[in-house]
Amino acid sequence: MGVCRLLPIMALFLLTNSVSADPDMLQDLCVADLKSGVKVNGYPCKSNVTAEDFFFAGIGKPGATNNSMGAVVTGANVQKIPGLNTLGVSLARIDYAPGGLNPPHTHPRATEVVFVLEGELDVGFITTANVLISKTIKQGDKNNGKIPAAVLSAFNSQLPGTQSIAATLFAATPPVPDNVLTKAFMVGTKEVHKIKSRFAPKT
Amino acid sequence: MGVCRLLPIMALFLLTNSVSADPDMLQDLCVADLKSGVKVNGYPCKSNVTAEDFFFAGIGKPGATNNSMGAVVTGANVQKIPGLNTLGVSLARIDYAPGGLNPPHTHPRATEVVFVLEGELDVGFITTANVLISKTIKQGDKNNGKIPAAVLSAFNSQLPGTQSIAATLFAATPPVPDNVLTKAFMVGTKEVHKIKSRFAPKT
Amino acid sequence: MGVCRLLPIMALFLLTNSVSADPDMLQDLCVADLKSGVKVNGYPCKSNVTAEDFFFAGIGKPGATNNSMGAVVTGANVQKIPGLNTLGVSLARIDYAPGGLNPPHTHPRATEVVFVLEGELDVGFITTANVLISKTIKQGDKNNGKIPAAVLSAFNSQLPGTQSIAATLFAATPPVPDNVLTKAFMVGTKEVHKIKSRFAPKT
Amino acid sequence: MGVCRLLPIMALFLLTNSVSADPDMLQDLCVADLKSGVKVNGYPCKSNVTAEDFFFAGIGKPGATNNSMGAVVTGANVQKIPGLNTLGVSLARIDYAPGGLNPPHTHPRATEVVFVLEGELDVGFITTANVLISKTIKQGDKNNGKIPAAVLSAFNSQLPGTQSIAATLFAATPPVPDNVLTKAFMVGTKEVHKIKSRFAPKT
Amino acid sequence: MGVCRLLPIMALFLLTNSVSADPDMLQDLCVADLKSGVKVNGYPCKSNVTAEDFFFAGIGKPGATNNSMGAVVTGANVQKIPGLNTLGVSLARIDYAPGGLNPPHTHPRATEVVFVLEGELDVGFITTANVLISKTIKQGDKNNGKIPAAVLSAFNSQLPGTQSIAATLFAATPPVPDNVLTKAFMVGTKEVHKIKSRFAPKT
Amino acid sequence: MGVCRLLPIMALFLLTNSVSADPDMLQDLCVADLKSGVKVNGYPCKSNVTAEDFFFAGIGKPGATNNSMGAVVTGANVQKIPGLNTLGVSLARIDYAPGGLNPPHTHPRATEVVFVLEGELDVGFITTANVLISKTIKQGDKNNGKIPAAVLSAFNSQLPGTQSIAATLFAATPPVPDNVLTKAFMVGTKEVHKIKSRFAPKT
Repeated sequence: MGVCRLLPIMALFLLTNSVSADPDMLQDLCVADLKSGVKVNGYPCKSNVTAEDFFFAGIGKPGATNNSMGAVVTGANVQKIPGLNTLGVSLARIDYAPGGLNPPHTHPRATEVVFVLEGELDVGFITTANVLISKTIKQGDKNNGKIPAAVLSAFNSQLPGTQSIAATLFAATPPVPDNVLTKAFMVGTKEVHKIKSRFAPKT
Repeated sequence: MGVCRLLPIMALFLLTNSVSADPDMLQDLCVADLKSGVKVNGYPCKSNVTAEDFFFAGIGKPGATNNSMGAVVTGANVQKIPGLNTLGVSLARIDYAPGGLNPPHTHPRATEVVFVLEGELDVGFITTANVLISKTIKQGDKNNGKIPAAVLSAFNSQLPGTQSIAATLFAATPPVPDNVLTKAFMVGTKEVHKIKSRFAPKT
Repeated sequence: MGVCRLLPIMALFLLTNSVSADPDMLQDLCVADLKSGVKVNGYPCKSNVTAEDFFFAGIGKPGATNNSMGAVVTGANVQKIPGLNTLGVSLARIDYAPGGLNPPHTHPRATEVVFVLEGELDVGFITTANVLISKTIKQGDKNNGKIPAAVLSAFNSQLPGTQSIAATLFAATPPVPDNVLTKAFMVGTKEVHKIKSRFAPKT
Repeated sequence: MGVCRLLPIMALFLLTNSVSADPDMLQDLCVADLKSGVKVNGYPCKSNVTAEDFFFAGIGKPGATNNSMGAVVTGANVQKIPGLNTLGVSLARIDYAPGGLNPPHTHPRATEVVFVLEGELDVGFITTANVLISKTIKQGDKNNGKIPAAVLSAFNSQLPGTQSIAATLFAATPPVPDNVLTKAFMVGTKEVHKIKSRFAPKT
Repeated sequence: MGVCRLLPIMALFLLTNSVSADPDMLQDLCVADLKSGVKVNGYPCKSNVTAEDFFFAGIGKPGATNNSMGAVVTGANVQKIPGLNTLGVSLARIDYAPGGLNPPHTHPRATEVVFVLEGELDVGFITTANVLISKTIKQGDKNNGKIPAAVLSAFNSQLPGTQSIAATLFAATPPVPDNVLTKAFMVGTKEVHKIKSRFAPKT
Repeated sequence: MGVCRLLPIMALFLLTNSVSADPDMLQDLCVADLKSGVKVNGYPCKSNVTAEDFFFAGIGKPGATNNSMGAVVTGANVQKIPGLNTLGVSLARIDYAPGGLNPPHTHPRATEVVFVLEGELDVGFITTANVLISKTIKQGDKNNGKIPAAVLSAFNSQLPGTQSIAATLFAATPPVPDNVLTKAFMVGTKEVHKIKSRFAPKT
């Protein structure tokens, strides 16, 4: 079964059906004033709007994948595109080095749909019944797991949020107590400390 | 100003901020039973779900652009990806021949955000105050309006719906009365008949 | 078929099922502070509330219909009735001279339902499949298309927004490029310039 | 103060800000199949749609007001206009005899906005802080509390629901226990039985 | 039938299906700044957040029930727990003396579900068809209507709002005109004045 | 700091702000027909409704905590209380043995608020910025971490769904590939197999 083959490129994500549809807009545009002193649900609207407020070049280029996971996420959400404020939609680009992984995560405020820009990779999600639904997908007719890959993700939220499971549990501040993790993962303090150390900031 | 240059490739769309967020889901999955005899808001859920229900290869390849507009839309919505039912998100791919146009339209049930897959084109929208906000966008560093272009559109609805303005008014069934169109566009019956004839099905 | 008769009074509108339900309220009242320096989705709430904030006399009287369309829309939305802020509903009155037309339009943020106050007229909408659904409706038992008509429209948004198709395309600022319009309507530059000139502000 | 004058015609309603926006639609139309054996939230969609499904003549004529309240409500909701299913909006017409009253009520699923069709009347609502906000409104320039009155109400729900307070408490089936009502209204069993008897069905 | 027995402890509430789901959040947290000069739908977000913002000790202890109804409601909504702002959920604790009553009411912005903390009581609601659905519920295996009772109510709104029917109608400011109440309850001015006097503030 | 003390009883959960407000109801009641052959978003409505459809005794008694986590969750959602269908709210009771843990999890469709029924425990959540916000809470004045504890959780969804992180990743079917987990947790295959074995069903 495809997902059991150890493909050179992997993207695996948790159940993302937190289909938390953003509230509907009440006017044509409410371009986010990211610097406003007033904080509200989402962002207040700024006054002077230009076409640039609806554009973000950063998502057009591959991100650097030379990190421990061999994958990098470039978000194009309301924090990058102020014009998305109140529009209830956003994008993200994930680039993978061969063997790269976008580690298991959830998006607390959105559903995600993925389009392959380049290469070949595994995608999947796990239901609350712990059923893994996954598939190997690739760009067009290409079929080569040895080259880098890239996907575009679309979300039904201006700021989906991402919670990377391992880092959330083993690198939180303040730290999650060891005995919570040993009990949750049914291992000893040794293993928990080992994982925590791997997520500790390099000094 | 960019939008006034007559670029060889153009995509122009109307105000698309009908941010009609789909209703939230009430279970992990409700894969659309597209053939069910029962019709509800959206689709009923089918019983046997497979990874294929969440996948659509058709959006990975360019569509044929040899039509009068020189552009073709390939939707990847709930009708193509049954797994999107209740998920509140979908995609579409628009391919353009040089000089192609995705004619002015609205999406009654979604907001749209666009990612350039290939080439260079103009995108824009018009507010209810009749202000045109547009920009020339291109893929990465490429800069060549002579080659075909392609964009990926993301929507915050499983079925955004598309209403192509000209065709809606001049090719409806039954037809919109001539005097409605002459008055709306402030032209004579001659011009109205001319436009209607252009949209008439070829025989 | 009713809609094919050239009735003296016509109201025709596009598909209005952008049922963009406004976000729900979080307190009893949040009367719009229309002059606040802070801009948010909708309006901030003002402090001193009176019964006048929930009332607008303007919608009670017929509007002047001596314009090119022979019809006038009087909105009773949050901009006229501050008390409607966060309430998700509004009204509009449309008056028609004999032969008047409320030109084809969309409401990006609401669904519309119509009640005939006076006279007789055609109403209709067009689906995304370009099917025109229309009907001749009249007030009570009256039956006289020679007199003025008036309707009351109700919307499920505090500010539905209106996009009048012809004006949006032919009178936008900056203007929509000619070649977009010639291609979209499949006519020549001559016809496009003719329509644009009709929508040009009188000088 | 207007509301303290004992006007010959009165409409008083409770706080109606249950702005329970209906779920958004997932297709152009889902005309209610009112006779379907399948019951869902709202109604399933029927197959054959006609213009008649979007029309209800009953609201165009005054209702008979010869009842104990001297007022009658004619609803134009999804049960009368199947086409309103999934559209999130509806209307109602209330006719008043001189001195008529639409008794205090709530709409559990909608916000209400009122338009005066005829005559003059008091309208108002009470906040959860028990503040009465009311006003005497009248049609156009007319000013005569001696004639019948009529209003059109618009709701942001296809089926707002109406809960008439007095009848709900004193005419429920099975009946609300006497001691609940004596305690709630701080009166004796005598008064409670008196009110219950007034609401008892005539035999 | 259970509800017809005159139990020593009673909680009766009206139809509470005003399932006015709060708007979804657009970021992780937006802790209410209850003192902000800016008023919006809900509350603006404050800057410095602590664990205390998500905690309210007051709901842990029984409230004093020595009042005319023999019942007291202790709310744990956004006004007590600022961290609930934008989270769309809240709690309330209702304590009852033997024979106590939480008088008939509605929650304009939420649905309610009840958990019995202590004792035994009747709960119920009335539909818009005036059908009373009620049941005697008790804590665990205990069965003693002679002792105090307590319930925990959960709501799908950060501020459900409560409208106590009798007080709303007979103790509003300004007062609801007598003739509205005599007509609504079909009794004489004597009974109306009697009830109004019972709700008059003690002096 | 409270959360760093190793308390005998711990409940820790992940960020639960997937405030996926359920769609609003379109009628008074739509009691779930859990056995219907028709599957929709949520449940179809059954015909014969009784007070029992709104009641679930199971949540009134402590659950058995003699399992590996020393904690048990008793849900009172639409699957247990059919009357909750379309109401957008539900409850759950979690019982803890001394030292028990409700392992880190997310609720993809709801926000959660907790009330302590008995004992003392730590509760907390982690933001997407990996900040742990937690607090030791206890019932009323009691202060004894040596006895069992119990909490009541309220959710703004009829079926919040629960995704227990460790089990989701290490006990999915089909299994998550080892190299995904080794890379995600930055450990070796040995540790991954060890954890997987702990979650393997006993035989």
